[in-house]
Amino acid sequence: MIIDGLQYANWSDAIFQQMREGGVDAVHVTIAYHETFRETVANIERWNRWFERYPHLIMQARCGADVRRAKQTGRTAIIFGFQNPSPIEDDIGLVEVSHTLGARFMQLSYNNQSLLATGCYEAEDPGITRMGRQVIAEMNRVGMVIDMSHSAERSTLEAIEYSARPIAITHANPASWHPALRNKSDTVLTALAETGGMLGFSLYPHHLEGKSGCTLESFCTMVARTAELMSVDNIGIGSDLCQGQPDSVVEWMRVGRWTKAVDYGEGSPNAPGFPPMPHFFHDNRDFANISSGLAAVGFDAQDVAKIMGENWLRFFDLSFGPMPEGPPRAYDD
Amino acid sequence: MIIDGLQYANWSDAIFQQMREGGVDAVHVTIAYHETFRETVANIERWNRWFERYPHLIMQARCGADVRRAKQTGRTAIIFGFQNPSPIEDDIGLVEVSHTLGARFMQLSYNNQSLLATGCYEAEDPGITRMGRQVIAEMNRVGMVIDMSHSAERSTLEAIEYSARPIAITHANPASWHPALRNKSDTVLTALAETGGMLGFSLYPHHLEGKSGCTLESFCTMVARTAELMSVDNIGIGSDLCQGQPDSVVEWMRVGRWTKAVDYGEGSPNAPGFPPMPHFFHDNRDFANISSGLAAVGFDAQDVAKIMGENWLRFFDLSFGPMPEGPPRAYDD
Repeated sequence: MIIDGLQYANWSDAIFQQMREGGVDAVHVTIAYHETFRETVANIERWNRWFERYPHLIMQARCGADVRRAKQTGRTAIIFGFQNPSPIEDDIGLVEVSHTLGARFMQLSYNNQSLLATGCYEAEDPGITRMGRQVIAEMNRVGMVIDMSHSAERSTLEAIEYSARPIAITHANPASWHPALRNKSDTVLTALAETGGMLGFSLYPHHLEGKSGCTLESFCTMVARTAELMSVDNIGIGSDLCQGQPDSVVEWMRVGRWTKAVDYGEGSPNAPGFPPMPHFFHDNRDFANISSGLAAVGFDAQDVAKIMGENWLRFFDLSFGPMPEGPPRAYDD
Repeated sequence: MIIDGLQYANWSDAIFQQMREGGVDAVHVTIAYHETFRETVANIERWNRWFERYPHLIMQARCGADVRRAKQTGRTAIIFGFQNPSPIEDDIGLVEVSHTLGARFMQLSYNNQSLLATGCYEAEDPGITRMGRQVIAEMNRVGMVIDMSHSAERSTLEAIEYSARPIAITHANPASWHPALRNKSDTVLTALAETGGMLGFSLYPHHLEGKSGCTLESFCTMVARTAELMSVDNIGIGSDLCQGQPDSVVEWMRVGRWTKAVDYGEGSPNAPGFPPMPHFFHDNRDFANISSGLAAVGFDAQDVAKIMGENWLRFFDLSFGPMPEGPPRAYDD
């Protein structure tokens, strides 16, 4: 079972075919960065066309059972997610509507302050907002995973605390390995693991030691150290693969409609575009390199299987349905 | 099994409770008259609140099995529908999105010309439009029922012809019983039945012989005559009950945003509001009157059961899922 916790490729039948060649059973795909609800629905319509045109390659997944069915029928399961809460606008009712449409992950903020939480590039991080607490409870209720990949430290720790269900950081690495605003402190990673949450390791060069020159051994050694910190049950892959996207797309990710100036995000004026991928991971056919690299640094076959997909599948089973009867909801507090 | 093929009440827990008292197992409820997609989603959000607040009274139904589950658990199944194609705007991709959100019926036009078909109050009826043919094929594909209750004659006959699946007229009566632009010719009713379609008999006074003064016997005699024309397997109830709505709502239904003038629809300057309901059908507790009336005009118990709900349930089973493999789609012609 191979599951990727985040991709935003320039989708085409060629890439769907590569997923099959790489034996990728499921991918959490980004369907919104800064889009409004209506714009996000237009993106869902594009996916519906692909599901209709390529039913032998891909299918939409809404639960872990769908992922198993995709594997059994030789297809890749596609799971929708938002990198920003913009699709729910200022309307908490859109959480359930988005879940009905298939969204299973939503980041509470993307680099900047949102209505819900603070992004990792803000100077100040006041934590989860009033609406943020309400939305966390609603996401818990319907079965949408809180993703704090692009959020700031305090907001992330509060999301872990306020959420009644485990949360995820779908695509980031430990800051102790490569200091970057997008990578996460040991404090965050420990709290995440203690509550049953998941970290997906990113292959995006700005998150890697040595960036595009990162070696497979360095990456896999980092995974081994993180397994010691978080346990081997709370980690997976979240490649952040943006295959085939023009540089205009990374500019949309960073700038959206929030500024008229240029924001280079993790890039710089000299390197504003997508950085080259590391030599050991170019596209969906390269997951076997990571499996081999993990074995080479000492993981046994069972642990390699957990990291490559089984942990995500278990997390999906626990996270994508309505919340079982439990403690009072946060917004009743 | 009691199923109502159309209602648009001023929903409240009191009305949901009356549904339970009346033993109503399922209702097709209107969630849009002239709303855009985003406004329709806001209406779905209101319903989601009611489903969350009153889970002991109502549940959303997406298929016939859900209706059976509602009956078994003592609740009323709620099935969403649109009286106008306005929720899909000019975007055929919104058919599948709306189906995913639960819409199972859509009228191709409401009194006026739409992007898809002609309404029953237009002077000219050029029939199904180019987009209309595409949308009929898409509704066939995903499992959304074409409803021609407020459409004009030629458009209705063409919808019956172009649709690869049976269609419905959820709420209207034979024009031979009560001449009204909203009631249907024997030509339409015969074509509807020959293709397996369903007619829901309306209790809205403007569709009744004698209007608000219509007698139960007259209504049930009309049902018996229609059963002779269409067969007892192709008819049901579609009460058009608008319980508790203020007159501003009937004005919204008629006028929407398409005119600045007043349009009285089936009313008149002297009687612009909702007319009083006939004495034998005031609300959801009165379905037993109709069952008794049908028995009194000679229907046996099996046929009464068909008309009161079993026909609709069989139709839901055949209509709400993806189209089985069949002839080429209309838009491939």
